[in-house]
Formats: sequence, structure tokens, C-alpha cells
Amino acid sequence: MVENNSVCDIGFIGLGVMGKNLVLNLADNGFSIAAFDLDASKVEDTIAQDMAETGLPSARVVGCSSYTELLACLKPPHLIVLSVPAGEAVDDVCENLIGAGIQPDDIVIDTGNSLWVDTVEREKKYHSNFILFSSAVSGGEVGARFGPALMPSGAPYAWTRIKPIWQAIAAKVDAKTGKPIERTKPGEVVNEGEPCAAYIGPAGAGHYVKMVHNGIEYADMQIICEAYQMLRDGVGLTSDEIADIFAQWNRGPLESYLMEISVEVLRHRVGADNTPLVELILDKAGQKGTGLWTAVSSLELGTPAPTIAQAVYARSISSFKELRVTAANVLQGPQISPFNELDKQNFIEQLHDAIYCAKICAYAQGFQLMKLAEKEHNWQLDFASIAKIWRAGCIIRAIFLQPITQAFARNPELDNLLLDDFFAEQLNQHQLNWRKSVANAALMGIPTGAITSALSYYDAMRCASSPANLLQGQRDFFGAHTFARVDKAASKKYHVNWSSAERDMVEV
Amino acid sequence: MVENNSVCDIGFIGLGVMGKNLVLNLADNGFSIAAFDLDASKVEDTIAQDMAETGLPSARVVGCSSYTELLACLKPPHLIVLSVPAGEAVDDVCENLIGAGIQPDDIVIDTGNSLWVDTVEREKKYHSNFILFSSAVSGGEVGARFGPALMPSGAPYAWTRIKPIWQAIAAKVDAKTGKPIERTKPGEVVNEGEPCAAYIGPAGAGHYVKMVHNGIEYADMQIICEAYQMLRDGVGLTSDEIADIFAQWNRGPLESYLMEISVEVLRHRVGADNTPLVELILDKAGQKGTGLWTAVSSLELGTPAPTIAQAVYARSISSFKELRVTAANVLQGPQISPFNELDKQNFIEQLHDAIYCAKICAYAQGFQLMKLAEKEHNWQLDFASIAKIWRAGCIIRAIFLQPITQAFARNPELDNLLLDDFFAEQLNQHQLNWRKSVANAALMGIPTGAITSALSYYDAMRCASSPANLLQGQRDFFGAHTFARVDKAASKKYHVNWSSAERDMVEV
Repeated sequence: MVENNSVCDIGFIGLGVMGKNLVLNLADNGFSIAAFDLDASKVEDTIAQDMAETGLPSARVVGCSSYTELLACLKPPHLIVLSVPAGEAVDDVCENLIGAGIQPDDIVIDTGNSLWVDTVEREKKYHSNFILFSSAVSGGEVGARFGPALMPSGAPYAWTRIKPIWQAIAAKVDAKTGKPIERTKPGEVVNEGEPCAAYIGPAGAGHYVKMVHNGIEYADMQIICEAYQMLRDGVGLTSDEIADIFAQWNRGPLESYLMEISVEVLRHRVGADNTPLVELILDKAGQKGTGLWTAVSSLELGTPAPTIAQAVYARSISSFKELRVTAANVLQGPQISPFNELDKQNFIEQLHDAIYCAKICAYAQGFQLMKLAEKEHNWQLDFASIAKIWRAGCIIRAIFLQPITQAFARNPELDNLLLDDFFAEQLNQHQLNWRKSVANAALMGIPTGAITSALSYYDAMRCASSPANLLQGQRDFFGAHTFARVDKAASKKYHVNWSSAERDMVEV
Repeated sequence: MVENNSVCDIGFIGLGVMGKNLVLNLADNGFSIAAFDLDASKVEDTIAQDMAETGLPSARVVGCSSYTELLACLKPPHLIVLSVPAGEAVDDVCENLIGAGIQPDDIVIDTGNSLWVDTVEREKKYHSNFILFSSAVSGGEVGARFGPALMPSGAPYAWTRIKPIWQAIAAKVDAKTGKPIERTKPGEVVNEGEPCAAYIGPAGAGHYVKMVHNGIEYADMQIICEAYQMLRDGVGLTSDEIADIFAQWNRGPLESYLMEISVEVLRHRVGADNTPLVELILDKAGQKGTGLWTAVSSLELGTPAPTIAQAVYARSISSFKELRVTAANVLQGPQISPFNELDKQNFIEQLHDAIYCAKICAYAQGFQLMKLAEKEHNWQLDFASIAKIWRAGCIIRAIFLQPITQAFARNPELDNLLLDDFFAEQLNQHQLNWRKSVANAALMGIPTGAITSALSYYDAMRCASSPANLLQGQRDFFGAHTFARVDKAASKKYHVNWSSAERDMVEV
């Protein structure tokens, strides 16, 4: 099958949906590819789709039938991209590449959804065999085909070689507006704008950042779903009416891919009787792990991410469908009074501001988490650059990422997004409506864990004096855990001898 | 030092605060102890305290100066209790006991705060050397001395030997009232009532249950702290006034050790100018891991524990004191209007009901988590028995554990505490006030993450139709994750070809 070569730019292993689309994206951008999959039909399928799309008599992709053949097709030092399932499959391929004679200066890029700590281990493991680099890819199959967001990490040397390729295939953003530059047709390329691909840091950092992206995505989706339920069960609107409101919101600061597709989903009708699709979909949410990993990481690092955790829990609760149906007949809520038109308009406006503020808080939590992880792992993350990458290609792409980019550009050391001038002003302007909306939800019996936890987070973060003084007192009482004092150096610890008659306070 | 023997009932290793108190408790209950610590002064200290307390000319405890000497003092098969720090120290002691000639039918009980998975590993590791048993101990040093709650787990054979000892030293409960039977003086023993010690299950189960106990404890403490802040910052009450309210609440369904000590802490005054202690304590909370482990476990098992997670996050937020002080000057809240007397009374009554309902939800989450863990690990947990154990001795001991005991006694298979007749009735009766209190907090700008997340949990659990239908639609749109349908078998999965012009729905 191979004719002339040792001339291809890139070797590609794994031609599933993501892999195939990445290969075609690379080909559109002028890179020559040697492609291999253990399933030969996937190689054929990729070549067939390539020829069908270009209408050319030969493919832009060289199909290979073994690891050895793949290596033989590539210019040395070899550059090989993997798109295989996270976990054992990655190690299988790595071992096979070693068997096929991969060299220490060859580069292997893992683009799968590996857990970030596995990536760190793997880089060490294969250090003497080849350079393992990794790059999270966000944006699903459409992103892979027409421009994903890419979060590469690993040895800086490898990045200099990968950078032009990654920047070519990545989604592009208009620098001024912060909006994606459209690219939707095979053969199209976009050479202008800012590419959504920038070096994140050492091994693992890219996958960590992608994990947090997904955690934020969970929160973003849950916030929209809570707004949907407020409008559906609170106001009693139809799917189409809700789609109209979301479409309107999608023209303001909430403009985002997730809002856009929510409109599409809400408007979609199926079957002979034209039923709204959402009315047919079972309300049990699936999840694949990245959201919960984000919440777990926040707990372990000791930084608050309650809105992300609430989004994960909301999916858990949804999975207990039978329990919920039983409980609905046992546990009472309030009566919801019908709305008049003015009340309805106020309610909707308050809800808009609530989800906007909750969204700001979810992102603030995600960025604060990355900041803590940076410290913990001695990374040097460029938060403006991360926000930039997320403006297009990925699932949370939104106009909203532009002011985040600007916030971190203004102050790369910003401790929390809430403290940025722009976001503080937005929150101050909208907080009263947010409060009314949270109060509405509580009084009407509609669960809004994400929106509500965001408000608790906001109020706790702006609380100079928390009630943790009482908590420290309790801990000292039952466990002699000691406490610091407001009127003494913070390093000094005190304890009250609670079980003695005098209950004297001593420095310990 | 040893005279006659090989006659002692129990060998005890590790005479720190917990160890010493457990030894004295065992001695009060008539067991003869051989005690050893690497630090000989701790052995002397234990013996001295024993003689001081009893006024007898010789100690009830035999001091040993080596592992070999300790084993020589015991009746075979040997029974040895460890009270050493979790982690490496446990393995150190185990290796030393092997070196000193411990036998395969000897029993070693680890009473430290080991992570439950470590206990599982350790039981396997030492299987051929001796029988490792474990027993979480709750109640701090006072509990250890006068009756802790004990959560033993491991080989059932070992339990038959340990049971009479554990039941003797454990806290006791009046079976009718569910209240602890007081025991506060050295030499006192309590032979009546139900002991807070019952077999939990195989290796690790006891420590897992103790971990969940601590997770619930975090929630319980945080709920009280939020009530404190509502009264302090919302109503503007003094520490003494808040103590009065808590003392009153402590005579109703909220009667608990944590409420009781909150009153003690709030009333405590120090220094020449008689300042309330809480006003001197720095509002940065510490934490040791068990709370976050509980939240992590709930995320990993896919069961909701938002109120526990919020309690952990509240401690995290409190630790960012400098950030909070900065944010307090940047981020706005609402104006709080002064209360009139009637408003104040209503506010306090609503708050009472809110923390009662939130507490029910926190326990419901903890018990649901244990139920999921039971399934995951093939344990057979007796939830009525666990609730019984917690009625005395441990930190969350409360009158509240009596109806939980009764709920699981009525229905051992109860899926969730919210579905129990008693608790459902309590929630239905108090939910309106709870809602008003959550609305108050939101509108007044007081963070109440635990109380509020509990309401979201309640409303989500009683929601027959969640908004996860839209979420599944979103996931299918961007990631082809598929969905189930309400009008088809739940096992069937569907997908809409969103990128095609027809957007047709197919079964996959």
C-alpha cells in the first residue's frame, strides 16, 4: 500500500470518530499523514471519507497495516499522534511502538482523555524509549474535524515541533470580539485569528486543565438545566417558549455554545405528532468521570468548588429516578401561585441575572482550583492563555471567556475572578436579582443546587468574618484541636482546658 | 517490673491521650492490662494516673518495657489493642509484634483513625501472622475514658472474643429514651442500658462507617455555625443571646452534644474584660481529612452528599481569610433592614425548623452513602445498629439518633431516611419555614451553604421529573452520548443525528 515514502509528516494511530476527524483536519491543513488502526476497516473508512470529501483520485492519507510500516512512512525524528481510549490501550500502543523500533528522539502525543496523573507516570515510564507528550482535545467530533481546543503539555522541546501543526488545526478566534471564526466545510482552512492551542505546562498539566474545563462544563450545563426547570415548573412555560427565552439570552453576556445547543434541543420535535424531543428523553443523566474528578481534586486541594460539586450531585440525584418518583408522593412542597404577566417578566429577568452570576462563580471556582493545583505541582499556568484557548472549539466556548481572558491579562496573579474589576462590577450590578431568584426557587420548591450554591459561595467569599470561630471553638472543645486568635500572631495556637473547673486558656 | 504473670487479659500498645484513657476505662471495667509504649514515660504516667484515681497501693495496669515482655504478660491466645497514629506506625508495631513471636491465633485490634482501605490491605498482609481486627473509636478523650462509641470490624471469630470487653467499656444508652447514661467519674461503671458497640462487618467496614460519622459531624457543625451567623449577622444578637436560643433549641428535637457544647463555647468568657471567647477565635477552620474523604466517596459512588460537601467547602473558604477580607470591600451584598420584635421571633422560629430539616437531610445523605458503599463492597450493614451506636459516646450523639434507629428497625431496607414515615412527616410539617429561612439568608446576603444545599437536595429528591432530560439532550448533541426515552424500555438507547439536515432519531 505504501509506495514511495518515509515522507509523511505525522503518524496517526487510532481512527475512531475522534481520530478520523483529527486526521481529516490535519490533511485539510496540508499535513501528510500515515494512518494505522488495529481494525483495518477503520483505515479504509478514513481513506474513503477523505477521497469522498476532496473528490481527488487519491487520498491525502497513507494507510498502514502495522506499527513498523507506520514508522517507515515517517520523516525522522518521528511524530506520532495517538487517539486511543484512555488507560491500557495507550500503554499497549506504546509497547508496540517500542517493539517496532521507535527512537528516543521520536515524539508520541497522547490525545485521549487520560487521567492526568497517569500521564505523569507514563512520561517517566517511557522516558528512555521516546518523548511522551500529551494534549487534551476538546470539542467532540465536530471540533476534531473543524477546529478543536487543544491543551498540550509535556517537554517544551517537543512543543516547538508540535506547535505549528497544533495551531494550524485548532479552532481560531477573532482577537477583537473573542468570537470563534466559523469553519464548517471539508477542505476549508482558517489562517487568521488566534488559535485555541497554547502550551499549558509539564506532563499532566494539560489533562488537568482539560479536567477542570469539564468540571466547569458540568456546572454550566446544570445552571442552564436549573433555569429550564424554573421556567418549566415554576412559570409553566412550554419547551418552545423556553427556547425563545434562551435564544434571547444567547444574544447577551450568556451567549455560548451550550445555550445555543439548548435552544436547538428544546426546539427539536419528533414523530408523527411532532412531540418536543425533550418530553421524550428520560431524565436520568449519565456521567463519565471528569466532573467528579474535578470536584474530588477541589476537596483534596482544599479549595471551594461547590457549584461544580452540585452539578455532579445533580446528575447523581437524577439517576435515582425510582426513588424520586416514590418521594414525590411522600414529601411535600409549597403551592405555586399562578403568575401575572408582570411577575412573569420580573421572574425571568431575575433568573437571567441569577444564571449569569452563578456562571461567573462556577468559573471563579474552576480558575481558583487551577491556581491551587499550579502551586501544588509547581506548574506555571498562564490563565489568560487558558481562557483564550477556551473561547472556541471546546464545549464551554462562549463570549464570556473574553472578559476572563482580559481579566487575567490585566492581572496574571489574580487570586480569584470575583476580584477582577469587570466581574466584581457585574456581580454587584446583578446580585439583588440573583438573590430574588434564589429566594423564588426556595419558596416555590424548585431545586437549584448549582445557582444557589454559587450564591452561598459568593456570600461566603465576601464575608470578612465567617462563623468558623464557633467551629474552631467546637473542635477545641471535643478534640483539643486548638485555635488561633484574632488578637495574636496567627502562628500561635491556644486551647481551653474545657474539662477543668477553671476552663483556663493556654498557649500550646 | 513484671512479677507473677502471663495472666493479663489485654495487652495495650500506645499510651497517648486516647490510649491512656482507654486503658483506664478497661481497668475500671475489671480487665487486667499489660501496657507498653516506646516512650517509657507514658507507661509511668498511665500507672501513676491509675494509682492516683483509685487510691490503691498498686496499679491495675502492668507496665512493660518491650514487645516481648508484653506478650509474656498475656493469656494466650493473646489479645492486643493498638492506639497509635494511623499509617506507618501501625505497620511498625505489627512488624515488631511478629518479631516478638506473636501467633496466628492472636488478635490485634487497631483503634486508630486508619483510612478504611488501608485496613483492608493490612488484614490481608498480616493474615498468616495474626488476626488483624479494627475498631474505630469515637468520642475523643472523654469518650475513651468514660465510654466511647465503638465501630468494630474484621473476622467474626475475633469479635466473639472482643465483644464482652467492647460492650463493657462502650457508652451506654437508655433503650427507652435513647439518651446516654451518664458516667463521668473514675472507677464508675455502667452495667445497664444498650452498649454503643456492635459488630459492623468485614475489615474496613467499621472505619468506613466512622468516616461517614465524621462527614455527618462536619455537616452538623456547619449547620449550627450557619444558624449562629444568621443570628449574629442577620438579627444582630450577642453571643449570650445566641447561647440562650441554642440552649432552648437543645431542649427539643435538636438536643445534641454539638448543640450543648456550642452553648458552652458561646457563653465562655476570658480575660480581665470578660470578652466572649468566640470573639477572640480566628475564623479559619482546620480539618483533618475524614470529612473530605466522605465527600470524595460520595462522588465516586455516585450518591448525593451535597450538605456534607458544602460543610467541607465552608471550611476551605474560611481558610482563605485574606481573600475574604479583600473581597468584602469589593463585592456588594444587600442592605439588611432592622427587625421588629415579631419579625425577629418568626425569623428565629423559621431558622430552627431550617436547621432541623437540614440536619435530617445531612443524615439521609450519610445513610444513603453507607447503603451504596454496602452494595459496592458486599457488606451487610445493620443501619439500625449503626444509628444505635451513635446515640452515645460519639460526637454526633443526639436524641435525633433515636428516631433514626426506629426508622431502620421498622424497615431495614429503607432506601432513604426521607421516606421514613416519621421523618417525612417532620419534613412536611417544617418545610415551609425552612424555605422562608433559606429565602431570608439569600435576600440578606448570609452564606448558608449547608442549610441551603439541604433544601436543594430535598426538592431534587422529591422531584419526579428532573431537568436532566435537557441535559441528556445537550450531551447527545455535542458528544453523541445517547439517551433513554420515557416511552421505551430504559435499556434502549437513542441518538439524534444532530449534524445531519434531517436530524433523525435512531436507536443505537
